[in-house]
Amino acid sequence: MPSRPNIKEPVITLSAGPVAAYPRILQALSRPIQYDYDLYFQQFYEDVARKCAKALRVSQPALILHCEPAPGIEATAASLIGPNDVVLNLASGVYGKGFGYWSARYHKEMVEIEVPFNESIPPEAVAEAFKKRPDIKVVSLVHHDTPSGTINPAREIGKIVRDNDALLIVDAVSSFGGMDIHPEDCFADVFITGPGKCLGGAPGLTVMAVSERAWKHIEANPKAPFASALSLKDWKDAWSKDKPFPFTPSVAEVNGLDAALDQYLDEGPEKVWHRHALTAAATRAGLKAMGLPLWAKSEAIASPTCTAVRVPEGIKDSDIISAARSEYGVVFSTGRNDTKGKLIRIGHMGPVAEPIYAVVALTAFGGALRKLGRKVDIGAGIEAATAVIAAGRA
Amino acid sequence: MPSRPNIKEPVITLSAGPVAAYPRILQALSRPIQYDYDLYFQQFYEDVARKCAKALRVSQPALILHCEPAPGIEATAASLIGPNDVVLNLASGVYGKGFGYWSARYHKEMVEIEVPFNESIPPEAVAEAFKKRPDIKVVSLVHHDTPSGTINPAREIGKIVRDNDALLIVDAVSSFGGMDIHPEDCFADVFITGPGKCLGGAPGLTVMAVSERAWKHIEANPKAPFASALSLKDWKDAWSKDKPFPFTPSVAEVNGLDAALDQYLDEGPEKVWHRHALTAAATRAGLKAMGLPLWAKSEAIASPTCTAVRVPEGIKDSDIISAARSEYGVVFSTGRNDTKGKLIRIGHMGPVAEPIYAVVALTAFGGALRKLGRKVDIGAGIEAATAVIAAGRA
Amino acid sequence: MPSRPNIKEPVITLSAGPVAAYPRILQALSRPIQYDYDLYFQQFYEDVARKCAKALRVSQPALILHCEPAPGIEATAASLIGPNDVVLNLASGVYGKGFGYWSARYHKEMVEIEVPFNESIPPEAVAEAFKKRPDIKVVSLVHHDTPSGTINPAREIGKIVRDNDALLIVDAVSSFGGMDIHPEDCFADVFITGPGKCLGGAPGLTVMAVSERAWKHIEANPKAPFASALSLKDWKDAWSKDKPFPFTPSVAEVNGLDAALDQYLDEGPEKVWHRHALTAAATRAGLKAMGLPLWAKSEAIASPTCTAVRVPEGIKDSDIISAARSEYGVVFSTGRNDTKGKLIRIGHMGPVAEPIYAVVALTAFGGALRKLGRKVDIGAGIEAATAVIAAGRA
Amino acid sequence: MPSRPNIKEPVITLSAGPVAAYPRILQALSRPIQYDYDLYFQQFYEDVARKCAKALRVSQPALILHCEPAPGIEATAASLIGPNDVVLNLASGVYGKGFGYWSARYHKEMVEIEVPFNESIPPEAVAEAFKKRPDIKVVSLVHHDTPSGTINPAREIGKIVRDNDALLIVDAVSSFGGMDIHPEDCFADVFITGPGKCLGGAPGLTVMAVSERAWKHIEANPKAPFASALSLKDWKDAWSKDKPFPFTPSVAEVNGLDAALDQYLDEGPEKVWHRHALTAAATRAGLKAMGLPLWAKSEAIASPTCTAVRVPEGIKDSDIISAARSEYGVVFSTGRNDTKGKLIRIGHMGPVAEPIYAVVALTAFGGALRKLGRKVDIGAGIEAATAVIAAGRA
Repeated sequence: MPSRPNIKEPVITLSAGPVAAYPRILQALSRPIQYDYDLYFQQFYEDVARKCAKALRVSQPALILHCEPAPGIEATAASLIGPNDVVLNLASGVYGKGFGYWSARYHKEMVEIEVPFNESIPPEAVAEAFKKRPDIKVVSLVHHDTPSGTINPAREIGKIVRDNDALLIVDAVSSFGGMDIHPEDCFADVFITGPGKCLGGAPGLTVMAVSERAWKHIEANPKAPFASALSLKDWKDAWSKDKPFPFTPSVAEVNGLDAALDQYLDEGPEKVWHRHALTAAATRAGLKAMGLPLWAKSEAIASPTCTAVRVPEGIKDSDIISAARSEYGVVFSTGRNDTKGKLIRIGHMGPVAEPIYAVVALTAFGGALRKLGRKVDIGAGIEAATAVIAAGRA
Repeated sequence: MPSRPNIKEPVITLSAGPVAAYPRILQALSRPIQYDYDLYFQQFYEDVARKCAKALRVSQPALILHCEPAPGIEATAASLIGPNDVVLNLASGVYGKGFGYWSARYHKEMVEIEVPFNESIPPEAVAEAFKKRPDIKVVSLVHHDTPSGTINPAREIGKIVRDNDALLIVDAVSSFGGMDIHPEDCFADVFITGPGKCLGGAPGLTVMAVSERAWKHIEANPKAPFASALSLKDWKDAWSKDKPFPFTPSVAEVNGLDAALDQYLDEGPEKVWHRHALTAAATRAGLKAMGLPLWAKSEAIASPTCTAVRVPEGIKDSDIISAARSEYGVVFSTGRNDTKGKLIRIGHMGPVAEPIYAVVALTAFGGALRKLGRKVDIGAGIEAATAVIAAGRA
Repeated sequence: MPSRPNIKEPVITLSAGPVAAYPRILQALSRPIQYDYDLYFQQFYEDVARKCAKALRVSQPALILHCEPAPGIEATAASLIGPNDVVLNLASGVYGKGFGYWSARYHKEMVEIEVPFNESIPPEAVAEAFKKRPDIKVVSLVHHDTPSGTINPAREIGKIVRDNDALLIVDAVSSFGGMDIHPEDCFADVFITGPGKCLGGAPGLTVMAVSERAWKHIEANPKAPFASALSLKDWKDAWSKDKPFPFTPSVAEVNGLDAALDQYLDEGPEKVWHRHALTAAATRAGLKAMGLPLWAKSEAIASPTCTAVRVPEGIKDSDIISAARSEYGVVFSTGRNDTKGKLIRIGHMGPVAEPIYAVVALTAFGGALRKLGRKVDIGAGIEAATAVIAAGRA
Repeated sequence: MPSRPNIKEPVITLSAGPVAAYPRILQALSRPIQYDYDLYFQQFYEDVARKCAKALRVSQPALILHCEPAPGIEATAASLIGPNDVVLNLASGVYGKGFGYWSARYHKEMVEIEVPFNESIPPEAVAEAFKKRPDIKVVSLVHHDTPSGTINPAREIGKIVRDNDALLIVDAVSSFGGMDIHPEDCFADVFITGPGKCLGGAPGLTVMAVSERAWKHIEANPKAPFASALSLKDWKDAWSKDKPFPFTPSVAEVNGLDAALDQYLDEGPEKVWHRHALTAAATRAGLKAMGLPLWAKSEAIASPTCTAVRVPEGIKDSDIISAARSEYGVVFSTGRNDTKGKLIRIGHMGPVAEPIYAVVALTAFGGALRKLGRKVDIGAGIEAATAVIAAGRA
């Protein structure tokens, strides 16, 4: 008998990911499981790797790792960062800070720029760091630090890194597919994303664009893992229908990825970004009208794919989550680690990146606060949100 | 547009895995993607971990790693084998031999028993090894070395290991679910399997039973990875609905695993093993009647889940694969590494572990040989196979 | 290539049916197609017919017709109403009125009680009709006349019909599964529903409970169709695993029905009805606060499964539909025939019978009116709706 | 809990339909249920009706009825045959004979040509009939009379009918999609098929091509049903995105039909027909080698989509069915009505129209006879079948 917890399933999930998947991705996940060494699957895999490249706007087939992006990023650190490398770690949130711990296992030395977790990295600081330490070889940036819902200026930072001849890692896991961010635009040498966030697919794969410069650095790294879950090298040529897989790819996930890319490319990236942005803008307008402050220091750095709201004084984040779920069946995310307890995250990713879900979010968030005894003018929030939506469509 | 290579899809896949999935697993893969921090999914995950335990016949919820078993085994080596450990590696095939290379990254020293890759490990040799090296702390055994299609005597070996107070790793990836092999029966301390072989599910997860003794050893291992794709510790308590996940679980794969376990438990393990065994026996009888020798030195060690046939002199394995596919749409597996070119593998795993597929296999294999110019009495093969089937059902 | 119109798919469908299906029903629709004469399917079909009976709270396996309910109701008229039958047709809406036209093909004579299409049938009028015409043999009632969104007092009317020894047809297509209505409670002799409305399944089947009295009447009807799409008799015993099907059943639809019944029975009928009622109540409260009048003459007869709102003066119904769709991706239904142009219907059926969708509906409806130049206080509507929801959960 | 009979599911279904569906059709069946009045679905429906036309090789969008073809054929009789029409019924099998009973409800008079149910209709007899009765207005022909597994010469007969200015109904339900038969080629005025046979889809729809001549005749028929399950007229223009549906279409079935057509058109009709024909030829060669006579009087009229074998003397058809199922999990069909007990049907339709399934069929059929005590040389059958297959691929 299928496992069905005696708990009501959420009605609407507005999480920071995993997110509800588009219907056609769910259908694709149920495609037959093909044998990975059969030529049908080998050609299919190559086609999907090329379709990734199309979405990423790069020319080489993407690198696909058969794990979700967190271990994919760990593998990047293990593969790219060698024992002679000075790393510049840019920490504007929990994930940015976290990368430093992985880096520490491999680097020679780390320079870190850390800003409060509701701010973004100033490009000038990066330029400054290079002035002080021209030996910086690898820079790591989280484009959208999900636990903060904030965006870093990847393009500006990337330009500086490239001008200084260093290698840039960009974690765009929860921004790619929901806004205009692509490897070459931001000078990324390793650009990391996955299907489980703004592409509205299942989590379980890492999709990467790795530059020729990065591959050379990896090949020159004497400690770069091989025959390992932490290896990028193992999978470098696996996209080619003529090359073997180092281990069994996650066939069902690749099926899902194929459909996730179709969903994105068929609708049109610009249209997809627009509805992410509009949903976020409507949500923020509504929150403001309800007197609920954003976590982000300025709205300019608030992510179009996830809105972080401060938890009002005297309320526990988990109580808001529970109240929104029991009253409306709506699920939000809390913060993580350092941001845990301080904020609630409303995801606008994939199929729920639609303006009507701003209204859903505001009602459920406001309703939860009311249930916890606060006065909130939900009506005012909805009015503000609908005004943004009406204008955005115009 | 969905990627559909301009290559005909296989009609019937009789591979050594990934295998065709049962329909209800494909349906389960298309369940909605739930948010991993929502209490519905957390309870669901615990339920599935407990259902794994039921199938494995152990009491503690299973350890699920979110990668296919190859990296899962690497993670086992990384986590269990410490810098003071003497390892006994048992190599009767490519996978057994391969474990030694992973072990070498972590162990103090390795003792190895290697037999020709068409034979199995004699338990006496293990007993002998312990006599010579009572300091052996970890033993690694591949129960079914898939690239050879041969079975090792896990229970007998396990008893010796336990009596010598060492820890036993059993790779039962391609045998569990297709024959009677369970962690406690074979004294395994780390027992490794996955849904993508005899359970007839999708590849993409590792399912493990880890003994208390093994957990203690891991906890005492100063080099055991944490916050890593190679960590077992990270996921130790993740089954509990009250504990966080170290990184995002592969939600769709867990949905599929749930159904794979249902399929297995609902049909009844003994019935499932019987049809695997009968299919293999019919296949072997047919091959014998067709004058085609098994790879396994004796039929007694031939796996009930995969039959390895020697490639006839003067023929290329890849030509057989191509001919069977073009003539009948039937897909087989070649060997791997040392067995590549020497044998063809006919999988009997999951939904194709049904006697009629012995007939399919014999026809396609024989037909391929004919297409390549050999004389083969397919009719005699079918007669022999059907006789076994008729008796087996009686 | 799958047909995907170059039109954006709706974001949220709040129609009067077909409705969005529950995920597990979509999964069930993708079960393998079984051969109808195979014993597996025959047993399955019987199981589903019995599960229908459980949901309908009757003892005999349900009658399943392999067409959606409109032709199913036509078949009822053709099978039950004989050339000597006087029919009392109860018309409080388009569907009730429509039944009279089908009846006219078969009956001897028809008595009709018609009320304005925003009112319900007074039981007293039925009692009165029987006094005048004690020869009435068949009475037809639409429980929920969907094009009006109004409910008739089935139980009270049914009691009168039974006391007068006539046969009662109850069309509960769009009410069963969303509120407390069952064949025996309302003395129905032919009770008609289907999976595509409140059960949140696919349209394509008719599910009926037919009393022994009705079967006798059908068997005595010399004109009752057989070997026909209009025959009830053909399918009378088809539920039995030992009986043949008169023609091929719609296998996929039966698979979906099985899951639709599970969804309903597993959640618990009372819980399902409650969320339908609460969603409707919140929607109505919101509409009232926005100054938008219901179609129903009194709120007491407004359906808990579908809210009909009057189209404001000077606005075309189709413009509202278009505006709600373009601005919010939300789809509503218009009226039908006599109610077309006069009202908009907001469905609360199946998976969207959840209070948060009251908020969605009010926003999209209000937003559409605004886009068409009207002033609407959406905020006030949301406030009223959330107050009902907060109270309803208390 | 999903209904799962305590009966093992078939391993391989080789029925005369419903047949196992192609995987992509099962996926399509799980697409979201769209609201039929929403413009997305309306455009989709038109697209599918046009795609049907492409497959049928006609210019007008197809007529889709929302029932399986048996009631669809009944509706054709009811709609096309008026009270002044003389009908020529061509009966070479159970379905052909059966049409006469439907016709009898509507026609003025019927002329019938009946041949033994293992023969086909001689075109000369049709020419002769017209000579005797130039007033014949409607001719009905079953192209593939499934309960006999025999094919009628539709093109030759059609030419004669057209030359005599009569209207031709062609039931191509179980031949279209598996062989070269199209409405215009055979001069059909009403050509009837469905997705549940050779297209390898779900049963539940009727797909028709209706000529302008036929529509005129229907419109002139004073008794042609309307507002009815038996009406063709109701659905005449329903394909147009601008026209309403007379009742709710079976949304899920239309989703499945879309994919069934893609499967057929993407693979290429000629290739699809070839594998149907080759599978049938191999099966027949094998049966012959096993000494098992075909039902068809000559192999020339044996269907490429279904092979009917005579039940050997002294054996019950149901015992063969049971034995093949219990021994091999393979499901066949029996005869129907007049052919019941006399033959067993081996379907070659859709995904099982692949040569390897000839081997499956012969083994299961031979194995069943053996289980019932007969001597059968299965090996000889397989040898004969594989020889045909090897030649067919050359």
